Amino acid sequence: MKTEKKQLTEKLKKIRAIFMDVDGVLTDGSAIFINGTTPKVWNVRDRLAIKAMKGLLGDDLAVIWITGRPCTELKDRASELGVDRTYSNISNKYQIMEAELSVRGLSFEEALYIGDDLIDLRCMEASGVSCAPKDAAAEVLAVADYISDKPGGKGAVRDILELFLKAIDRWDDLVEKFRGVGGSN
Amino acid sequence: MKTEKKQLTEKLKKIRAIFMDVDGVLTDGSAIFINGTTPKVWNVRDRLAIKAMKGLLGDDLAVIWITGRPCTELKDRASELGVDRTYSNISNKYQIMEAELSVRGLSFEEALYIGDDLIDLRCMEASGVSCAPKDAAAEVLAVADYISDKPGGKGAVRDILELFLKAIDRWDDLVEKFRGVGGSN
Amino acid sequence: MKTEKKQLTEKLKKIRAIFMDVDGVLTDGSAIFINGTTPKVWNVRDRLAIKAMKGLLGDDLAVIWITGRPCTELKDRASELGVDRTYSNISNKYQIMEAELSVRGLSFEEALYIGDDLIDLRCMEASGVSCAPKDAAAEVLAVADYISDKPGGKGAVRDILELFLKAIDRWDDLVEKFRGVGGSN
Amino acid sequence: MKTEKKQLTEKLKKIRAIFMDVDGVLTDGSAIFINGTTPKVWNVRDRLAIKAMKGLLGDDLAVIWITGRPCTELKDRASELGVDRTYSNISNKYQIMEAELSVRGLSFEEALYIGDDLIDLRCMEASGVSCAPKDAAAEVLAVADYISDKPGGKGAVRDILELFLKAIDRWDDLVEKFRGVGGSN
Repeated sequence: MKTEKKQLTEKLKKIRAIFMDVDGVLTDGSAIFINGTTPKVWNVRDRLAIKAMKGLLGDDLAVIWITGRPCTELKDRASELGVDRTYSNISNKYQIMEAELSVRGLSFEEALYIGDDLIDLRCMEASGVSCAPKDAAAEVLAVADYISDKPGGKGAVRDILELFLKAIDRWDDLVEKFRGVGGSN
Repeated sequence: MKTEKKQLTEKLKKIRAIFMDVDGVLTDGSAIFINGTTPKVWNVRDRLAIKAMKGLLGDDLAVIWITGRPCTELKDRASELGVDRTYSNISNKYQIMEAELSVRGLSFEEALYIGDDLIDLRCMEASGVSCAPKDAAAEVLAVADYISDKPGGKGAVRDILELFLKAIDRWDDLVEKFRGVGGSN
Repeated sequence: MKTEKKQLTEKLKKIRAIFMDVDGVLTDGSAIFINGTTPKVWNVRDRLAIKAMKGLLGDDLAVIWITGRPCTELKDRASELGVDRTYSNISNKYQIMEAELSVRGLSFEEALYIGDDLIDLRCMEASGVSCAPKDAAAEVLAVADYISDKPGGKGAVRDILELFLKAIDRWDDLVEKFRGVGGSN
Repeated sequence: MKTEKKQLTEKLKKIRAIFMDVDGVLTDGSAIFINGTTPKVWNVRDRLAIKAMKGLLGDDLAVIWITGRPCTELKDRASELGVDRTYSNISNKYQIMEAELSVRGLSFEEALYIGDDLIDLRCMEASGVSCAPKDAAAEVLAVADYISDKPGGKGAVRDILELFLKAIDRWDDLVEKFRGVGGSN
């Protein structure tokens, strides 16, 4: 990791949008094809954290999923969690990121990017904060500000969102929200 | 784990109902969506233990599954094992637990709860005995009376039921029942 | 493991039938239910070894699969490999084993049983040789003559068949058969 | 591994065709059967690397998949990545390899073979370079020039292609191609 903890916290405080790659980040990188669909193996704890974070921060934080591959269920999985926008079958992720930030009036410094493979390199290098699951490609690990101790699809995203919410002093709010109403999010 | 072995055994002897979260407890937390269904990856050894325990204890012990997510197969999977009641798509698990205990004339002290994530915190804190798989969220591990050395969906429930049945001196009965009739349960 | 290597080899030389549990032995214990079917996750190396062994030994060795659960694909998966007989939805595996051995004019001493859970205990104790994957239930491990260093569904069966074929001096024949014809089995 | 690093690099420079087994190499060896289809669990990072390599080298390098099993989706998965040719349900892989090399005017010395089981032994022994995932059969590991530190279906192919592309001094080109256009491959 190229960024010290204290400096990372400062950088995280500026984040207004989180961009996530899908395969290898929100999944363990397995690719399955059944009857023309591409069902993915998502992770419940990642999903709970995304939904709860969006419930807590609303429009103050945009969440965007970008995948290089076609995906038949991306929109459905995203809308269940309050994810703001999804892009699939994208060869140039940087272009998408640039356009999304521009529309939202945000700079790259205000963007956190989570990626795991070569296709994510340019976005990671451009973002204010770049994060990777522990099983990301070597080139990706080399540029990441933060490397989760969890692999993709096995809690890496949850771990990174917890890091972010702690940096902006909102993690305890999220925990208390769950505790207070017996589980409601 | 906050509870000593001896004290835990005493607490387990009072248990009359076992409440289980589903995703991350009876499964490894994988979430799959195919053609409008949400097939889960269950564990055969967990399932054998639940069925055998219900066969042994009958109405002396209620087993209830509660999940925060919608689930298209929950009732089918439960009825195959003799699980008494299931609840899906629940945001407030504590409320459900309270109502179930009330109907059965039981107190929280007589309830064992197995959970793995923030949504389970209040139920765990309220229960007589709270248990978690080893890969549960940090906040959940912090309040659990017992942490299994197995992760969710990989035998954690089996391990916890064995702990319970040993505490009430019925594990050997269960083993002998299997051995005696060559496998029948 | 209760049996010494040398003694185990002597016992293996007498084997004329191999009985295998299915879930947790030929699979990793995952249970999936989709549209009324119960697709299992089999292992290619296990399957290659069973097929090659039957190709080599033919009727000199019977292979029988017995599962306590209903299974919609058991016969299909078995016939592809030359497995002699399958039984599903069986509560008393010992009875089945006894009948199968009787029909074939074999004794329990000539049977090898591979199992992983309590339901397999009586069959394991009765068999000439009993084997288990490394992640079997503690009670099963305690009675097994041989414990594979591989878990169920991840090569345990392959490992056990290799042990058997080496004991009867046929493993090299199997390897050479593959090597000689460039892969044909 | 029987081949020293320096010698391996020299051998890799001669490679003009890469032959890959499928199950246990491009997958983790899981075999699933659903409604007459045999969906496999592929790996996204393997797939990205194959596609990017073919995009970079084009007809200078042939990629051929050969599997001993029937496979309903082999051609579709291959054509998405630019794989030149696929063969399924093959008992004699060596014969296929010989014919493919002959048609392409190549020698076995110019072929790299990736395999994991006994059925691959003869092809591995005949090839200029033979590679295996770390969880391959013992007999296969014994003859491999290079053993990946990753298991089949979990990045072994990606790792081997990286080794090859580094040996022919093209890996950096591939990384820069991704970085330069923000992810396009």
